[in-house]
Amino acid sequence: MSQGVPGVPPPKSVLDALSRTSSDPTTCGYVPNAGELSLRKAIADEMKFRYGDDADIMPEDIALTAGCNLAFFSVATTLADAGDEMIIPIPWYFNHEMTLTTLNIKPVILPTRPEDAFMPSPERCERLITPKTKAIVLVTPNNPTGAVYPPSLISAFADLARKYKIALVIDETYRDFITSGPPHHLFSSSAPVRHRLGLVCASPSFISHLNTALDSIQICAPRPPQRALAPLLPSLRTFIRETADAVAHRHTLFREVLPKRWCIASQGGYYAFVRHPFVGISASKVCQRLAEELGVVCLPAEFFGPKHNESVQQEPERWVRFSVANVNDEKVKLVCKRLAESETAFGWSIDPKA
Amino acid sequence: MSQGVPGVPPPKSVLDALSRTSSDPTTCGYVPNAGELSLRKAIADEMKFRYGDDADIMPEDIALTAGCNLAFFSVATTLADAGDEMIIPIPWYFNHEMTLTTLNIKPVILPTRPEDAFMPSPERCERLITPKTKAIVLVTPNNPTGAVYPPSLISAFADLARKYKIALVIDETYRDFITSGPPHHLFSSSAPVRHRLGLVCASPSFISHLNTALDSIQICAPRPPQRALAPLLPSLRTFIRETADAVAHRHTLFREVLPKRWCIASQGGYYAFVRHPFVGISASKVCQRLAEELGVVCLPAEFFGPKHNESVQQEPERWVRFSVANVNDEKVKLVCKRLAESETAFGWSIDPKA
Repeated sequence: MSQGVPGVPPPKSVLDALSRTSSDPTTCGYVPNAGELSLRKAIADEMKFRYGDDADIMPEDIALTAGCNLAFFSVATTLADAGDEMIIPIPWYFNHEMTLTTLNIKPVILPTRPEDAFMPSPERCERLITPKTKAIVLVTPNNPTGAVYPPSLISAFADLARKYKIALVIDETYRDFITSGPPHHLFSSSAPVRHRLGLVCASPSFISHLNTALDSIQICAPRPPQRALAPLLPSLRTFIRETADAVAHRHTLFREVLPKRWCIASQGGYYAFVRHPFVGISASKVCQRLAEELGVVCLPAEFFGPKHNESVQQEPERWVRFSVANVNDEKVKLVCKRLAESETAFGWSIDPKA
Repeated sequence: MSQGVPGVPPPKSVLDALSRTSSDPTTCGYVPNAGELSLRKAIADEMKFRYGDDADIMPEDIALTAGCNLAFFSVATTLADAGDEMIIPIPWYFNHEMTLTTLNIKPVILPTRPEDAFMPSPERCERLITPKTKAIVLVTPNNPTGAVYPPSLISAFADLARKYKIALVIDETYRDFITSGPPHHLFSSSAPVRHRLGLVCASPSFISHLNTALDSIQICAPRPPQRALAPLLPSLRTFIRETADAVAHRHTLFREVLPKRWCIASQGGYYAFVRHPFVGISASKVCQRLAEELGVVCLPAEFFGPKHNESVQQEPERWVRFSVANVNDEKVKLVCKRLAESETAFGWSIDPKA
């Protein structure tokens, strides 16, 4: 339960279409950096389906990249120069920090707390804004905590970004695991802020600068998948919804079978963020013994933030990320059984408050 | 004859394999950043075929990227920090300059001259090396000039790089258009310098750092093409050789039918670099009229170097890049016929020395 790697392959209709477009000689040439217009149109339509009919999204707002990581990389290089700052909550998605550091953009840390279910605070964020701040970067549903930010919280961050004329970058890689209403209302015609990541969705003027950045990095994204997906998106809604329902069910199961001394602070999308019950023991040590002695692989919170100075830290981090969506129901039960075993097997004292 | 876009689709065996691997659900997961081991092995073997049996190339020397541009981007970010310098000859491949500027690496210009057939001079290069220099970047066969650097020249640059303990980066995107012997001998066991670009070929210790850089940019390159190509490389040698022979024939034809007042300084790979015959007229103006009035599209030398200060420049650049490999024999003849027409149609005076 460590990496976030989908275990479900794409539907047969997608695989068949990939087979056709990959062997079509006309897909061997370049495509404009922003991608095939047919797919950009289809994505704009799907986003209206997802965010509501008042979502004001056009094909000109969309740029396609070879993976979400390259989307964030190209957005970062478009928004900021070396020496500028971007605010990112911790626990962070480590690739965001790696990208900013590669580009000599300073990641400014916005701490989040378990008692807030790891929701970031717009008020605390405002205090971190300086003349060098170019963007606030959010991930929802979050990696690693699984926290799903409510539309009202996202609106508050959009207001903050507008007030200081900085960008709000939202990484929505796990968006389709949200089974309730629209993830937020930033795309409605009345809301002038609209930046979305995965593919990149932003204003045409931003996309034009992004194109320049992409031209320096990847030139165009692979073309056959673009041609394959363009006509299929609406037909995939059922598959997406069924997958999301299955993952939601697994989160419920995980909550039910998790031993009662292991505490979930936040849960959603692909992940759950869980406090282990061992007093004074770091999550890294717990994860190492879980892997070596009980065959359970999960990631400690230390992986998702800056290196701590062990000597000044009062109490070790006790948070662990479980990639709940990665495994089937039987594995969820087995993992929880092993966690219960660890409480006696490890011989460490248990937090009486847990 | 402007862009360098291959007009020949891949052979049917490649398209068929792409069709198979693209629809295989097992190719939907991540692959290690450096790429499928099967393809890296096959590439190491092909490089031995190309560079000679004494070429000391292992799969561990190879990293695969989504396109050559991303290869150069990841190499640049691995070798240098913001504020460092890399030496690049002009005329340059503009994407190299764009990448360096994006990463705040200073491109230090090494001029090349038509009277040297646009070959860069190791002696001039040495004078540009400073404590901040991290690499010398060469392109051979060159874009835009078409110049094919002889193995002895490449060896001299390798010696220079070794002397100053800096990297020699060679972009060999157009390598397979060389129909004579090995492009150079840097990979022979006795030569300790071995960096190659396209994919990236370098020492395992360099590849390990490159992996870290790739992890911040693209994570892994698309997997189906890797699986498709792995078993096919040796079977493609004939196709590659036939394509190279056809391009070489087209270069010969271009040289034969080009009007005698248009002067070729260098020619090879995809391109020929040609001086137009109009006195005191910039290549930009000539290219614009060729496109608008005669339907011939080619690129002026100004595109391949830093912006000039027009007021201080003595004589305008008269060099034009023709993408000779882009068109068929009939088009080559037609283009040359139009160039001949332009000499009278444009009403500009002709250089008596041309």
